[in-house]
Amino acid sequence: MTETRQIVLAARPEGEPGPEHFRLETATLPALAEGQFRVRLIWMSLDPYMRGRMSAAKSYVPPIAVGAPMQAGAVAEVAESRHPGFVAGDVVFGYFPWAEQAVTDGAGVTKVDPKAAPLSAWLGVLGMPGFTGWIGLNRVARGKAGETIVVSAATGAVGSMVCQLAKARGMRVIGVAGGAAKCARAVLDYGADACLDHRGAPDARALSKAIAEQAPDGVDVYFENVGGKTLEAVLPRMNDHGRIALCGAIAWYSGAESPPPLPPVWQTILVKRLTVQGFIVTDHQAHYPEFLAEVLPMVGAGRIRWAETVAEGLGSAPAAFLSLLRGGNDGKQLVRIGADPEAAA
Amino acid sequence: MTETRQIVLAARPEGEPGPEHFRLETATLPALAEGQFRVRLIWMSLDPYMRGRMSAAKSYVPPIAVGAPMQAGAVAEVAESRHPGFVAGDVVFGYFPWAEQAVTDGAGVTKVDPKAAPLSAWLGVLGMPGFTGWIGLNRVARGKAGETIVVSAATGAVGSMVCQLAKARGMRVIGVAGGAAKCARAVLDYGADACLDHRGAPDARALSKAIAEQAPDGVDVYFENVGGKTLEAVLPRMNDHGRIALCGAIAWYSGAESPPPLPPVWQTILVKRLTVQGFIVTDHQAHYPEFLAEVLPMVGAGRIRWAETVAEGLGSAPAAFLSLLRGGNDGKQLVRIGADPEAAA
Repeated sequence: MTETRQIVLAARPEGEPGPEHFRLETATLPALAEGQFRVRLIWMSLDPYMRGRMSAAKSYVPPIAVGAPMQAGAVAEVAESRHPGFVAGDVVFGYFPWAEQAVTDGAGVTKVDPKAAPLSAWLGVLGMPGFTGWIGLNRVARGKAGETIVVSAATGAVGSMVCQLAKARGMRVIGVAGGAAKCARAVLDYGADACLDHRGAPDARALSKAIAEQAPDGVDVYFENVGGKTLEAVLPRMNDHGRIALCGAIAWYSGAESPPPLPPVWQTILVKRLTVQGFIVTDHQAHYPEFLAEVLPMVGAGRIRWAETVAEGLGSAPAAFLSLLRGGNDGKQLVRIGADPEAAA
Repeated sequence: MTETRQIVLAARPEGEPGPEHFRLETATLPALAEGQFRVRLIWMSLDPYMRGRMSAAKSYVPPIAVGAPMQAGAVAEVAESRHPGFVAGDVVFGYFPWAEQAVTDGAGVTKVDPKAAPLSAWLGVLGMPGFTGWIGLNRVARGKAGETIVVSAATGAVGSMVCQLAKARGMRVIGVAGGAAKCARAVLDYGADACLDHRGAPDARALSKAIAEQAPDGVDVYFENVGGKTLEAVLPRMNDHGRIALCGAIAWYSGAESPPPLPPVWQTILVKRLTVQGFIVTDHQAHYPEFLAEVLPMVGAGRIRWAETVAEGLGSAPAAFLSLLRGGNDGKQLVRIGADPEAAA
């Protein structure tokens, strides 16, 4: 009998979630059945989409039941196995509970090569956020050299990837981020030609004016991660036949920012003949090898940069998640759950 | 010196326009310069997009100046010509003032074969509305056999064409229209499998439930002509990866119907990975021959039906236009300005 600590959804939040919506518990893991294995989590990823899973509303992933553990993408080490495909010591990526240990039948679990890149990169530039940026730019927005792209949440795990890939494709890249420090990083680390501070802009009109100054030829692609004021500011700058890759709307997840009315948005889509396309990275899994073939060498060659904000220990996950929702992270938000076997070696 | 009656924009409306925003005037046409010709209008088309041209806001067509004539697509007969490509007696289609006669240099004017179809059809099924439906279905929404489509304004000039083309392609067609009589026509004349009366539904939720009953496999394509309650009702029924061809939003043109908030719409686009694409038929002019090659034989064979609402005489145009904005027309709204030379023959 193995015990593990885990974090469960204690109650469903209305509006902005708080620490009272999470609970740290100790659970007993079942003995391994044939075909199962047990992992020890090393790195756990925190992502804005998890806010959606805390609500009962229909979304692209089912809600977490109240009382059940929160779930996260994680890199883990196999501790014990009765599965023919995994042996103790294997390093894997999969979706696991917010926990120190977990038992799995291996569904959706893949081995990663611990020598190819730092382990945490499999949750960031080589994982879901990096792949999301690549899919959005290549298969949704179809950004082309010479075009102008606006990237919201430009220093986030997804946005920073979009900035770098778009720049490598020869696009003019305008980031939008919250605060001067993030804006400086978008330009210095991620190659944006300019970055605008949405917190520094008194309203959407001012932000829109700033975008116009940085996009003299208008905006062809908007990589939409946030909704809210940034969306309202970008829409008037979109060129005819522009594309909006809709990847998230974090500004509205907790109801904190008041949205623009729908009719002028709809009218702009019509008048400018925009294409707005929602996308979920998991629909595009078949392209992951293509992504990896392009980006893994770039990571190996040091041509892709990223930032990580690391919270230490499982117990810190709720506070780190709440901070993430308020934009308190810088780059990929991780929780270090266990020792990295490579680092220890 | 030729005199003509014409209708000018008297003032810009705020909200719903009224008769006070139009003025009937007599104007003197200039003598023909070399390269010009004079036409007598026979049929004039009234279309919802003209509401946009009455406002000063940027749209896909520039605003009409206050005091300048309103503009419309029209079928006309050449009365007098100093243009090498046109002779008196030619029947043409072009964009002309709301007037009985006009002088033009021929830009955007094309000859039509008066024997191929009734002259008014060049403003309807063979003209901009019919072509709009064809483009929206084929090149924007890419409707496929076996899919379910919801067509708003299903008995309108565009919607009735979409219903018939979609049915011919083997789609399940659910119309939405205002009133029982229009709904009956959508089914009996335009081949819709069902048609829902948005006026009979107390709210968007009830309309949405009715759509669900008629679309047991969900909705793959929404042909969006109206915005408002219909949009709100269709969104929850959209299947993953559904497409919305955004062609108009008449419900909001005059601010009469209160819109749903933006965040849940945006969230639905994301969660269901919808594609919303605005389109304007004039962007697709290169495909007009392809459209005509398909649809002209269908019209000739009596396989495409249409309805016309005819207002008699130029002076009736403002009232007919205001009625059109309130859905008072049945099918293509026309104004008969002059005698049809074929009918007279």
